[in-house]
Amino acid sequence: MKLAIVGLGLMGGSFALDFRCIYPKSKIYGLDISKKNEKHALELELIDELIELEDISIADVVLVSVPVDISLIIIPKILNFVNKETLVFDVGSTKELICKELLDHPKRKNFLAVHPMAGTEFSGPNAAVKGLYFNKTNIICEIDKTSKKISRKALKIFQLLNMDILYMDSKSHDIHVAYVSHLSHISSFMLGKTVIEKEKNEKNIFNLAGSGFESTVRLAKSSPETWTPIFLQNKKNLVLAIEEYILNLNNLKQIIEDNNRSSLHSILNNTNRIKEILTNTKVENEK
Amino acid sequence: MKLAIVGLGLMGGSFALDFRCIYPKSKIYGLDISKKNEKHALELELIDELIELEDISIADVVLVSVPVDISLIIIPKILNFVNKETLVFDVGSTKELICKELLDHPKRKNFLAVHPMAGTEFSGPNAAVKGLYFNKTNIICEIDKTSKKISRKALKIFQLLNMDILYMDSKSHDIHVAYVSHLSHISSFMLGKTVIEKEKNEKNIFNLAGSGFESTVRLAKSSPETWTPIFLQNKKNLVLAIEEYILNLNNLKQIIEDNNRSSLHSILNNTNRIKEILTNTKVENEK
Repeated sequence: MKLAIVGLGLMGGSFALDFRCIYPKSKIYGLDISKKNEKHALELELIDELIELEDISIADVVLVSVPVDISLIIIPKILNFVNKETLVFDVGSTKELICKELLDHPKRKNFLAVHPMAGTEFSGPNAAVKGLYFNKTNIICEIDKTSKKISRKALKIFQLLNMDILYMDSKSHDIHVAYVSHLSHISSFMLGKTVIEKEKNEKNIFNLAGSGFESTVRLAKSSPETWTPIFLQNKKNLVLAIEEYILNLNNLKQIIEDNNRSSLHSILNNTNRIKEILTNTKVENEK
Repeated sequence: MKLAIVGLGLMGGSFALDFRCIYPKSKIYGLDISKKNEKHALELELIDELIELEDISIADVVLVSVPVDISLIIIPKILNFVNKETLVFDVGSTKELICKELLDHPKRKNFLAVHPMAGTEFSGPNAAVKGLYFNKTNIICEIDKTSKKISRKALKIFQLLNMDILYMDSKSHDIHVAYVSHLSHISSFMLGKTVIEKEKNEKNIFNLAGSGFESTVRLAKSSPETWTPIFLQNKKNLVLAIEEYILNLNNLKQIIEDNNRSSLHSILNNTNRIKEILTNTKVENEK
């Protein structure tokens, strides 16, 4: 199997490692806009060889793992180059716009819109980790627009990675991830910003910070190159999510100001349900 | 050494385990308002024996690990019972009010106001873990109000636990923790609330949730009994912190609505500094 990876960062590099694990005899090509990333990906043996975009037709599978604004430009180009049998899939965190962009592309049937719920707060080929894709939830959007033969090829790979597939239309996908993924990043980035602004003496931040702060602020370490275009592409849903979040924050602030102990306790208590929700569905997924 | 623990939850139970580790021959007494907690603490061998508040004078050291509103009532009572040599310290997350309450207590010199930057999102004696206190930052407030002899006793314990001591007045303490601890909890609780409200079909929450959401929402699992009184006691500082957080969220929302790519990128990029801040101070602390 010949895999070509366009974009050799965390997602692309980690996919190389996991793909090698399920297809040990595969040949992995790669390219990146950054020469440094290409060099590191070769040194780390994530990829076997560099490739030019024009030569990508030699690949059986093409993974596009670039920022979602670049995807809009590069995926149509890649589709122009590939042959009839090639699977091209992306792993971007937004799906509505890319699906819309490709709607009338003559090779739309070669493309599968994919969003694995996997990642870390680190970036670049050095951040690549084995096992990032294994056992994760994988959202596939609008699979009916992909040819049966090509989607079967993709599903085989995801099955070998033991991923849980969730089918969704691209609009619903973008609404859901606005809440469970993009809003988490916003809340974490703004927590980091608020605390940095307050604590002019930076040393105090960590000295006083327990593991709670570190875990809540973890996503604020994420790459601006990745997240700027995600936030902008999902603007419509994300702005609503932020507004609901601010409403809840304002409401809680008022309850605290009013010394309303019973309302405060009841809100915290109801929100504790997140514990059971996450545990139950986890157990169910592990069955 | 005889230790009495008032409040046998996560903090008290974990302290029992760590105290036993540094003083293997110690005798540990305990009491809790909940008979179930007392029973569990005995079964888990966190404590050797139950004790009545009236008999607490037999202890050399008394740890008060109860919700901060209960501390205000129970610490003055405990101080009434203890003898001249006994160290009484709390581990509450707010310090201004308890220090104010005890200002004129005839046994103020026996009390040390302590806040270890340690904890987990779990609660109760079953949540007790070994090593919770080891190597953590420990804030001590207004040590000059404690007798030298008694504070030396406390410092010896904290030294054996290899804790980093940070001295602070109680007002500064409450301001700082409003940002690096209490606001994290608020942001996490409200993220959980917003997502639960949106995702009526709860199963979707976890199916779509990557490790990013789980880490950001972790603190929303925390105990309402512990956190309701903390938020209320630190109202003055916390309301300001929430307002600054909301200001940053509103500002970011506007930037996203305006499609202002460069401002958005620059805010995310500047906030990435949290990475270096946390790493550098960590390295420094580990020296």
